[in-house]
Formats: sequence, structure tokens, C-alpha cells
Amino acid sequence: MRRWNGWGDDQFTLDLPDGGIAFLEARIGSATPLPDATLETVCQQVPASRLELTEPVRGIVSTDAEVRVRHARGQSLPDWLAMRSGDMGPFPDGVALPEDAGQIRTLLDYAREHSVTLIPYGGGTSVAGHINPLEHSGPVLTVSLARMNRLIDLDQESQVATFGAGTPGPLVEAQLRARGYTLGHFPQSFELSTIGGWVASRSSGQQSLRYGRIEQLFAGGTIETLQGTLTIPTVPASSAGPDVREMILGSEGRLGILTDVKVRVSPLPEREQFHVAFFPDWQSAREACRMLVQKRIQLSMLRLSNAVETETQLALAGHPALIGMLERYLRLRGTADGKCMMTFGVTGSVAQCKAALRQARRLCKEFGGIQLGTRMGDKWAEKRFTMPYLREALWQKGYAVDTLETATDWSNVDSLMAKIETNLREGLDDPNQPTHVFTHLSHVYGEGCSIYTTYVFPVADSYAGTLRRWQTLKHSTSELIVANGGTISHQHGVGKDHAPYLPREKGPLGMAAIEALQQRFDPDGLLNPGTLVE
Amino acid sequence: MRRWNGWGDDQFTLDLPDGGIAFLEARIGSATPLPDATLETVCQQVPASRLELTEPVRGIVSTDAEVRVRHARGQSLPDWLAMRSGDMGPFPDGVALPEDAGQIRTLLDYAREHSVTLIPYGGGTSVAGHINPLEHSGPVLTVSLARMNRLIDLDQESQVATFGAGTPGPLVEAQLRARGYTLGHFPQSFELSTIGGWVASRSSGQQSLRYGRIEQLFAGGTIETLQGTLTIPTVPASSAGPDVREMILGSEGRLGILTDVKVRVSPLPEREQFHVAFFPDWQSAREACRMLVQKRIQLSMLRLSNAVETETQLALAGHPALIGMLERYLRLRGTADGKCMMTFGVTGSVAQCKAALRQARRLCKEFGGIQLGTRMGDKWAEKRFTMPYLREALWQKGYAVDTLETATDWSNVDSLMAKIETNLREGLDDPNQPTHVFTHLSHVYGEGCSIYTTYVFPVADSYAGTLRRWQTLKHSTSELIVANGGTISHQHGVGKDHAPYLPREKGPLGMAAIEALQQRFDPDGLLNPGTLVE
Repeated sequence: MRRWNGWGDDQFTLDLPDGGIAFLEARIGSATPLPDATLETVCQQVPASRLELTEPVRGIVSTDAEVRVRHARGQSLPDWLAMRSGDMGPFPDGVALPEDAGQIRTLLDYAREHSVTLIPYGGGTSVAGHINPLEHSGPVLTVSLARMNRLIDLDQESQVATFGAGTPGPLVEAQLRARGYTLGHFPQSFELSTIGGWVASRSSGQQSLRYGRIEQLFAGGTIETLQGTLTIPTVPASSAGPDVREMILGSEGRLGILTDVKVRVSPLPEREQFHVAFFPDWQSAREACRMLVQKRIQLSMLRLSNAVETETQLALAGHPALIGMLERYLRLRGTADGKCMMTFGVTGSVAQCKAALRQARRLCKEFGGIQLGTRMGDKWAEKRFTMPYLREALWQKGYAVDTLETATDWSNVDSLMAKIETNLREGLDDPNQPTHVFTHLSHVYGEGCSIYTTYVFPVADSYAGTLRRWQTLKHSTSELIVANGGTISHQHGVGKDHAPYLPREKGPLGMAAIEALQQRFDPDGLLNPGTLVE
Repeated sequence: MRRWNGWGDDQFTLDLPDGGIAFLEARIGSATPLPDATLETVCQQVPASRLELTEPVRGIVSTDAEVRVRHARGQSLPDWLAMRSGDMGPFPDGVALPEDAGQIRTLLDYAREHSVTLIPYGGGTSVAGHINPLEHSGPVLTVSLARMNRLIDLDQESQVATFGAGTPGPLVEAQLRARGYTLGHFPQSFELSTIGGWVASRSSGQQSLRYGRIEQLFAGGTIETLQGTLTIPTVPASSAGPDVREMILGSEGRLGILTDVKVRVSPLPEREQFHVAFFPDWQSAREACRMLVQKRIQLSMLRLSNAVETETQLALAGHPALIGMLERYLRLRGTADGKCMMTFGVTGSVAQCKAALRQARRLCKEFGGIQLGTRMGDKWAEKRFTMPYLREALWQKGYAVDTLETATDWSNVDSLMAKIETNLREGLDDPNQPTHVFTHLSHVYGEGCSIYTTYVFPVADSYAGTLRRWQTLKHSTSELIVANGGTISHQHGVGKDHAPYLPREKGPLGMAAIEALQQRFDPDGLLNPGTLVE
């Protein structure tokens, strides 16, 4: 069953490898776990629902305490701290589980008539507070799209598939694969996040280099709004004015609720391989990365870990004997301390994969890259969605893990990465409390790339103290990002946690444009208030 | 010098090949040209300017009659009829030629203070009435960006170039090529259209398959609005809410005036080739086309003429001896009547071009395509921007030429193309007046493609009669497009000519979104009224 207070299926746990904790202790000291609250205790805190329910709304809304607990928080570190401490903050007053667009229209009518706040809910995987009810608000109804999880239509000639907006990643792929297709959208949250959530939060998948971000995959669909139904027809491209699709992408539930989502799919590829190469240092690795994408070598993914991330990944990979052999081999080839690991994928016809691989290998070699073939790449592919489970394992040992991400132009990447890492390493008030910080470039573009930084620190001796540590690091680093040419988010969205920094990025008129849309579609602010725009 | 009443440089004329007119006469009868008005006569009609000019505005505004004539109309067929007849319709009251953003802010202040309408003007190449003053309006000031035509900055590492918004195609490429780069944006209007115009009207270039549409190339920039300066920072990608870039793209001057445009550029390719293949019939050609793009074969352009366009192009190509040889060769290979010509490009490193060409050839062969190498492709590349001059040559012989274009999903392409062509062939009130109609797919995507239809008809015995012919065909075909799953424009934009059909495509809430933006930025409707939104 799904974990009520953390990531994923509670039957699945990831064991830390031998030496993993020693690796962290050597860097940031030992840690003492904080006690986890139980679901029972938390359920007892849930206040009576303030919703006045009559038919037909009553039939699709649950006010059960456990259901409300399970829809109250996402997966950000403060969400974890809230759930683990038992000090959960506000709960929704009920959770609706509509089955179709008609029921969503009913819920919108109800919200307007009773001044109820609606929070659209996909997989509940937000790490930026998208789906958390605000403190001190009126009645809140969370609208879960979980029942709208079917492949509704597949136009094979146009390669356009229509899905219920609540379809989670595995069901998207399973239903398509049965017909010989793939969407190719694999965010790390894939196991739980939904197609509607991807659109609403402008998600990016690990193979965006081939398949595109959700902006390129989202072809159209239907959004139920307080002003009526907005239908976005599918056309491959258009010059007919500003693109309404792009106003829905990233609207984070402020304009309406997606009911069906049309996406551009691809036939399953003939071949797919993931390769790993090691580079002697960051400079050469980063330049190789930039050249691979700027030369349009047809890769399907490209990811580059900096030296500390490379070291950390190898330490936490398990199989110390194998890793030892690898390290010796790389040392022999002249690549040792400071080495950086690149993972790249080739996907497509056999001819395309061969051509791309040949081009990529030649280029990597020019930059001193040592090719290791597909064995470690296969491992990456196998474990690509399990990283969040590692967070659970570390939590049980007393370590808090959070990630921060942005994107910037190539000419600013090194500078911004250094600033972010330094700030996270030195940003805590207590200079004796170091954090372990490492980064990878997760998505690359001709213009620049994303910067995805993970930081680990021991929990404080209280939940409040731990939250303060997070707040200190999160706030100062977010400020730093928007002050230094980064976007406040490349793939996590804005939610409530990033909303204070958005005006710095968009400027007053950029915000005015977004607010004008929100004002037009939801003048009374009933839809997901506090998200996106404070 | 630039032609005042038609396309391009008046020193450049294109002669119709022998047999070209006979080809048309056999299909749509003979034609008698209408007399062209002279620039002198038209200048005499220009009324006194209604602008009250004081410094500093006076210094940057011309009220000269000829300047006003030269900025009054675009390049649509009704624009041509207006210019050629001398019945020009409204003129702007003046033309401003600002040199920088500060002067544009001055003009915006002036417009607000004096209730003057501003029309931003790039290359004046609109074929949809974007830059035409409305009838019966107050004073109109056209703002030409012609003086803002420089490469301002080039970040070679991020491959981002900053241009003045008025930089025309040739100056964009020349300034980049001097540094080893290309933008790769080649709309047919390339010779005259500007980078700011491309953004404002969501332009698409002939090699969008490699370089992307202007949506993918536009990285950010500055827009002066009546509410202040909107700055869009460059980031390679972002999930930070709805994309403000996408609200400016296609805004057609309704939100503000672009002053500088940042675009994603590419190093000049090592190799570029254009190849031609002939297919025995439309079905196989269209399927080959769809497969080439859906299989992600790394082409840089792909264009497919239907049978009538293929026949027409060969007839108007000149070199009848060579064409005769080609026809005999194709006939020997089993490809004769109904054959369709495909042109495709490969661009990139030598290895990439070779790999793509090999894959493309294999696929074309599967669909019965006969490869002709690069000779005809080179001809296409050489003549890629001269088609508008052919229009001039045909006009001189009494034939009017117009184009209509849309885009739709692959499953709808054949049906929509047939409807458009039939309607244009049979749409005139007079059943004895046939039109010559042919189509190519100019841009292809995984989901679908553009449909670009040209129609030629003899002018009527008056300008008014000729305009009526155009209105009849344009109106009924536009209705048909939006009623049948096409976009009202894939690459020409909305302007005033397509504005009546936009609500059918966007729906009431899609229009409400666009209008909310327009209302927020320009509540008094001073910027380009009547364009985009009626």
C-alpha cells in the first residue's frame, strides 16, 4: 500500500549499502533519527469537516479522516517533516473522487455556490507544496483525479493519445505499450505522478532530449473551469496567436481542472541503450556535454554528475568489490580524483542508435572521456525511479535529503552551480553543521542545462529545528538562484514553496500577465490559492 | 529600390518560362491584365496627417506622403489589389523610425496622451493584413523598427544572439555568418521580414525541422508596453508557471513593441544538401513523408508537392529539354501521371548528413520513391526566396495568385487538403471561371503537417470584381478550415484577415484568455486594433 508519510509503496524498501552511512558520517557527522508519528495519532487530530454536503456532491466526496490525511501533503522535505512529526498543518475538509468531466463541473458549481476552495490532486508527488491546503482558509475540497486513469483514444496515424488526466506514469506506459507505443515521459516521480499533473506543473522527463518536455508532448485537451469548458484542439503547430496550451502548461490548478489530456506518443523504439563514460574533471565533462547537445547528436538522454556526486553515487552503489575494480581501472587510464560520470542514452532504430553512439563516443574521447559500455547504464535505467526510496532509508538513519534545481544558460552554469553548492554547504547558521552537497546536470539543451543539486544533513534534535535548517537553506538558495540568472524551477514547478521567488524571475509585467489569466478564469480565487501566485 | 506596390526589389524581375502562360491558359483560360496605378497618383490621394507632433516625437516621425504610402499595406492579395488599383484605403498619419527602446517608450507615451493608434511594422510582409490601418479610426502612427537592425550581442557558449527587433532576414544571417553562426530561420519572406515580426506572428522557416519554429528559437527579449517594460530573461527551459514568452509569440503587436529579440543560434553546419525524390502517387509520397518525420530521421527540411503542384512546378521551371528528359526517365522507372515531388534536406556534420541520407533513402525506396540526387534540390535552394517574384510576373500577365495555409493532424491531412482544393476550384460564383489549385506540405511534425495551397485565377475585368473573387474564395475556405480541424494559420498569422475565424479555433474561453492579456496590457486598445482580436 502507498506510504502515508513518505514515498512510494510501503512494501518496497531500499537497504543502504555497507559503508554508505560511514561515507556520510565522515562528511557530515553522525545522526540520530527523530521518532515518526503514527497514522493513527495523526488521524485523531483531523477536525470535523466544514463542508456542507448534499447530493450529488455527497456521493463523490469522502470526509474520512484517513483519506484526508493521505491527501494533505506532498513530498517536499517540509511535507515529510510535517507527516513524520505528526504536526501536519491543515487538512482538506474532504476529498472528491470524480469519475468524469461532468462530476468535475458539479464540483466547480458547488465550490462557487459554497465558496469552497478546490485543490486539484494528481499523484500528490509535488515537492513544492502545490497541493497543501493553506493555513487559516475556509473549507477546502481536494479533487483527486485518481479515477480518471484510462487511455481514452489513440490516433495511431497522428500518434496522438488521449488520457484521463489522473492517469499515473505506469498506467500511461502500460496502456500505450499494449498498443506498441510509448509517451517517453519519465520524471523521477514517474511511479506516482500523473499525466495531468505533468501538464499542470510543466514536468520534464529523463529522456526529454528525445521525446521533449511535457510542453512538447501536450497536444491539447479539456480543462473544466469556473467559466465553462476550455477545449484545446490538437494541431501540430500554429501561428494563430498566443498559444493557449502554453497558458495551461504550468498553471498549477489556478485556471481550471484538466479532465483529458492529449499527448504526442511514439512507436516503441527498436533499440535503447544507456552508456556510461567517466571524464577526468568537471571542465572537460561539462564541455563534452555541451558539445554533444549543441552538435545535435541524436541522444535520448544525457546526464552529468559532478565530482562529489560521482563519488557519492559510487559509494552508495553497493558492490564495493566491483566499484573498487572500476576505480583501479579508471586510475590506470588516468582518471581518478575529481572524475565525473556521464550517462547517456541512445534510442531509435538500430541504424540511428549506431550512428549516434559512434558520434557520441568520438566526441567524448576528444574530451578525455573513458567509455564503460552499457553495464552501469543498465543499472541506471533499472534504478531510475528508486532514488526517492533512498531518501526513506536515509531518513531512518537520521539524515534529511532535499533537492534544489534550476536551469540556466551554458555560460552561467559553472558560476551558478558553484554559488548554489557553496550556499548549501555554508548556509546553515551553525558553522559546525556541514551539509553534503552534490550536483548533476539532468537535462541539456542547446542554450543551457538544468542544475540539479542534492543536499543531505543530519536532522536536528527536534522537528522544528530540522525545519529551520531546511528553511534557512531553501530560502537563501532560492534567492540566490533568481538573483543569478537561474529559473526558480526547471522541473519541480512553483507551488507554494517557490511562489515568493517567482516575481523576481518573471518581473512585474510577467506576473501581471499570469495574474490577468488567473483573474479572468477564477476571479474569486477558489482554485488552489497560494500556489503559483502568492 | 523596394517595390512600393508589390514584392521585393524593383530591379529584380523573374521572367516566366516559355510555355508557362500556355500551361495556365489551358487550365484557366486567358487573362487580361488590369492597369497599375502609379506611385505619384497614389501619393496625391494621401490626406493631411492628423497627428499633432511636438518634440521629441516630431524628430522621429515622418508625415511624408510617399513614406506613408509605403507603410500602408502588406503583401496579401487584397493589399496588392489596393495598391495596384490606387484605391488604397486608409493611410497611417505618420511613420515613426525609432532608433532605440527609449524612443519607443516616448512613442508609447505620446500614443496614450494623444489617443493615437500605434501599428508596429517590421518588414511589411504580412499576407493577413497585420499592418493595415483600420477604416474610420482616429490618428494612426506606424512604428517601423527598420533602424533597429543590429546584432547586439552573441553569447557563443550559450549560442544566444541578441538582435534589434527590426533586423531583416538577410542582416540576421549576414551578421551571424560573420561570426560562424546561423539562426536557420528561412521563411519565404526572408528577404524582407524581420526577426521581431517573426516572433510577433509566430513564423516558421523552411528548415524548421532542424532549427525549430520561431517558438523554439525565441529565447527572450524586451517588449515595451503601455504598462512599462517587459523583460523576458533567457533560460533554456523552465517549469516556473505559464511561459510569458509564449504570450508574446503571436501577440501581433497587441501587447507591446519588441525592441530586442534573443534567439538560439547554431554554428554553421559542416555540410548541407537538398535532395529530390519522385513518388508514383500521393498516397505513397504522403506516407513516406509521415514515416520520415515519425521515425525521427534527422532531416533539416521536408516538403512534398502534390501531383498538380509537381506538374505545375515542372511546367514553370523553364529548361523544357531537361524536364522532358526527367519525365522520360521517371516514366521508364514507372512514375508518370500523378507523380509527386519530395524535397528534403540534410544538414549537420558529414557523419550526420550521411547517416540521415542513408536512412531517408532506404525509407523512400520502400514507398517507391525514385531518388534524383541534389541537382534539383540545389535549384530549390537557389530559388527558395524567389517565389514571390513569380507572383509579380503572373500579375503582369493578368493572373492573380494567392496562398492559403493551415496545419492539421496526419489522420486529417488528405481529407482537409481535398476539401480546401475542391472549395477553391469550385468556390467561385461563376462556374465558367475555374481556378488553378495546387498544394504542398511545407512543414512536417510527428503529429501532422502544414497544408500550403496556392490558387491562381485570371483577374476579373475590374479591381472590384477581382477582389470579390478573392473574398469569395478566402471566406469560404477559411470557414471550411476551422470547421474541419485545421488551424486558421500555420505560418502566416492572424492579422485582420483571419481574425474573424480565430474564435472558432480557440473557442470562447481561449479567446477570453487572449483578450484578458490584451486588456491588461492595453486597456484602451491603442496597439494595432483589429489585428488578432477583432
